[in-house]
Amino acid sequence: MNYRLIAFVLGEVALIVGALLCVPLFMAVGFHEPNSSIIGFCTAIGICLALGIFGVAVRPPKNKRDLRPSSGFATCGMFWIFISLIGAVPYCVSGNIPSFVDALFETVSGFTTTGASILSNVEAMPKSMLFWRALTQWIGGMGVLVFVIAILPRNSKMSTALAKAEIPGPQFDKLVSKLRFTSQILYAIYIAMTLILVGLLCACKMPVFDSFCHAFSTASTGGFSVKNASIAAYNSVSIEAILTVFMMLFAVNFNIYYLLIIRHTLKALKNEEFLTLISIYLIVVAAIVIDLVASKTYNGGDSVRYAAFNVASMMSTTGFGTADFTKWPVLTQVLLLMVMCIGGSAGSTAGGMKVSRAIILTKSSYINLKKTLSPRSVYSVKLDKKPVGEDTVSGVHSFLVLYVLIIVASTVLVSIERVAEGGFSQFETNFSAVIACFNNIGPGIGAVGPNGNYGGYGILAKLVLSLDMLLGRLEILPILLILHKNSWKRI
Amino acid sequence: MNYRLIAFVLGEVALIVGALLCVPLFMAVGFHEPNSSIIGFCTAIGICLALGIFGVAVRPPKNKRDLRPSSGFATCGMFWIFISLIGAVPYCVSGNIPSFVDALFETVSGFTTTGASILSNVEAMPKSMLFWRALTQWIGGMGVLVFVIAILPRNSKMSTALAKAEIPGPQFDKLVSKLRFTSQILYAIYIAMTLILVGLLCACKMPVFDSFCHAFSTASTGGFSVKNASIAAYNSVSIEAILTVFMMLFAVNFNIYYLLIIRHTLKALKNEEFLTLISIYLIVVAAIVIDLVASKTYNGGDSVRYAAFNVASMMSTTGFGTADFTKWPVLTQVLLLMVMCIGGSAGSTAGGMKVSRAIILTKSSYINLKKTLSPRSVYSVKLDKKPVGEDTVSGVHSFLVLYVLIIVASTVLVSIERVAEGGFSQFETNFSAVIACFNNIGPGIGAVGPNGNYGGYGILAKLVLSLDMLLGRLEILPILLILHKNSWKRI
Repeated sequence: MNYRLIAFVLGEVALIVGALLCVPLFMAVGFHEPNSSIIGFCTAIGICLALGIFGVAVRPPKNKRDLRPSSGFATCGMFWIFISLIGAVPYCVSGNIPSFVDALFETVSGFTTTGASILSNVEAMPKSMLFWRALTQWIGGMGVLVFVIAILPRNSKMSTALAKAEIPGPQFDKLVSKLRFTSQILYAIYIAMTLILVGLLCACKMPVFDSFCHAFSTASTGGFSVKNASIAAYNSVSIEAILTVFMMLFAVNFNIYYLLIIRHTLKALKNEEFLTLISIYLIVVAAIVIDLVASKTYNGGDSVRYAAFNVASMMSTTGFGTADFTKWPVLTQVLLLMVMCIGGSAGSTAGGMKVSRAIILTKSSYINLKKTLSPRSVYSVKLDKKPVGEDTVSGVHSFLVLYVLIIVASTVLVSIERVAEGGFSQFETNFSAVIACFNNIGPGIGAVGPNGNYGGYGILAKLVLSLDMLLGRLEILPILLILHKNSWKRI
Repeated sequence: MNYRLIAFVLGEVALIVGALLCVPLFMAVGFHEPNSSIIGFCTAIGICLALGIFGVAVRPPKNKRDLRPSSGFATCGMFWIFISLIGAVPYCVSGNIPSFVDALFETVSGFTTTGASILSNVEAMPKSMLFWRALTQWIGGMGVLVFVIAILPRNSKMSTALAKAEIPGPQFDKLVSKLRFTSQILYAIYIAMTLILVGLLCACKMPVFDSFCHAFSTASTGGFSVKNASIAAYNSVSIEAILTVFMMLFAVNFNIYYLLIIRHTLKALKNEEFLTLISIYLIVVAAIVIDLVASKTYNGGDSVRYAAFNVASMMSTTGFGTADFTKWPVLTQVLLLMVMCIGGSAGSTAGGMKVSRAIILTKSSYINLKKTLSPRSVYSVKLDKKPVGEDTVSGVHSFLVLYVLIIVASTVLVSIERVAEGGFSQFETNFSAVIACFNNIGPGIGAVGPNGNYGGYGILAKLVLSLDMLLGRLEILPILLILHKNSWKRI
């Protein structure tokens, strides 16, 4: 591990976060908000500046500006913990979220685009804080390090290692040969789509501030809202329709949009992960509509409206709510939990296990069945008609093992604390809280359902769930490897 | 697939099941039970005789008495479905369980040693029926086909294939070079330990009939009781202590007992799976005792008594109850669900995923972490200090994938039916019912907890749960491969 180099990149990241913190600071000043908000942002910017200057000061010599690729994971994990700690400062110093653990939970939830909140009344927060809350999601959605790579003139093994660790999915594809240009293309698509969404939301008469915040939440598939009732507050079919479409659009691999831009339309539309994503979405929506109508929960029209929106919200792991689905029939709840775990596509801003992993897992287990019948035959898992490497398949298998182990261990840990309020000592609540945080969704079922929040949990549970959100966003390895001594060997 | 051979072995199995059915028939006659019981058993014996004679008649020529090993799985799965259908006849014809689906559920639950029941009042059943119910577990525990191999003078590839499919665990070890002797040794240990347990239970003043039935339930880790209140009905610390020890003894790999018999004591006691099983048991008991005392559920003494018994009952997947653990704190419930899924050792009568699989999964995911750090190094998973084959590791990975897929799919299917009673349309109940049936435990949490039963489910749910029990007992492949066309190719 090259400590000087890490300090240097950390300094760069600190400076960028500091620059981003200026936006809500200007808002706080512009909206004449109480001094506490201004002090909160200034403190955070001050810390960023100090760390940034320190980082630039330790600039390593030119020939030592690269990292062993294997250290990339742990470094990425550490950066994410670092920005979460900094991002929590404004909430805590301003007194809007007095407890640091709560502020950290809210920030991690933002950066990891989970959207789980400890706030019971978001409308009481100053606008600058709500904007920062939305902005953390937008930055976290496409990735902080991807952003660093996009704007800084550098192209090295380290950048590739960091990007690999930060961009979700079982395989890593560069769009163009230079990683820096890849990052720039990704961010350009991301910014363009976000701005289009802002325009559409404004056109549907959502206030401009709300439109920006909700566009950030949608683009990153985060799910923080500026309203206590989330999207239900607007009670507008057109807003729901637009968000439904955009939540799913942001759950699609961004490579598809690149293929569309360079006019490889057919290749884009034939993408197996894309088609599977759409098929799962349509099948689950259909099943839930039937269940809602059969159980007489809603009439036909409302069933389609609620099912389409909520499945998109869960599958893209956004977590916006228009209805309290904990009151829906049990089949619907099980199906929603299922799409929560599958999540969106690799290379999108969505969380979950990812559709491509689900495809690889299903195909490889089918192949294993065939191998049992004819042990001498050779089969290989194919994705988009190309064989997937053995390494990728075994990586996906290990991913599932860790995925299951983390869910089990977290559920145990979250259940340890005895809390006063009843709902938080129920299996349903604890299990779905872990699922919802680890898959970066936000709301679960039971006491952490769409009408509840995570405020009732104790300190241990909040820290465990924060860790789960980071594990989910970075897909386990970057966080786990921080704990392994080999990641920290000096070169 | 050699159909004549399968019909022939099926005939043999039918004759053996017919012979076993004579025991409860004699009891029904001896206890002067109503004619309906006698008619029930006679009908079943008649069917067995008819099928047996037909099977012997199609005896294939000598040179065609072997099976492709790859067909062993599907054949084994089919035999289990066959004996479940026959075993349900007495309940149904006698009118003690009028619905055939219910009778089938109860029989599958017996043979697979699950112990899940649809009966709300077992004490109202005739003794002969209760004995048959206990006996199905005892036969299923060590395996019907293993029994057939033990008593019939044959030693072929087919026997090995069938034994491999029926004996649980990720690897298959023969104790001695001849499979037939291996089966005989296994059954000898099984019978001896069962008889010792009967003696001990009688010594603790449990009635002789109850002792036999409970010994069968314990030896097979099934869990059917002849009392509505299960073991709590006796309220005896000594009975609970004996059963706690024996439930854990039957969750140990029988190879260990063979090693002890041939005086390889050290090798037996150093066995990694054995030590892990004991460690998990002790740690979970300790955690639950602390949780029960801290939550003031019981005092210290009672906490130890209830925790020791119930963890043994869940981990060995027996499912005897001495307390309604659904009323215990949530941490305890989560820990119980966890040990339910891990289950006992490979090569024991216990269900679940098996401790050795859990060890291989944990180790292989740790090795994958290390590989990420130094991709060029070669590591291998070790069990008992010997490297585990790549095939076994990838087999265990595929097992986990199928395990998770089946749990998800079953939970969806079980949630489809809309039933009148509230508890059966809760996520907690449906999810734990699937876990409890698939891991062959019996009671779950919610409406299928220790004080509830499975009678409230609809027909679809009962059939799905029956299938889950078979999938769990035969460890997935034998049942899944029945559906694959390649299993049925003619040679």
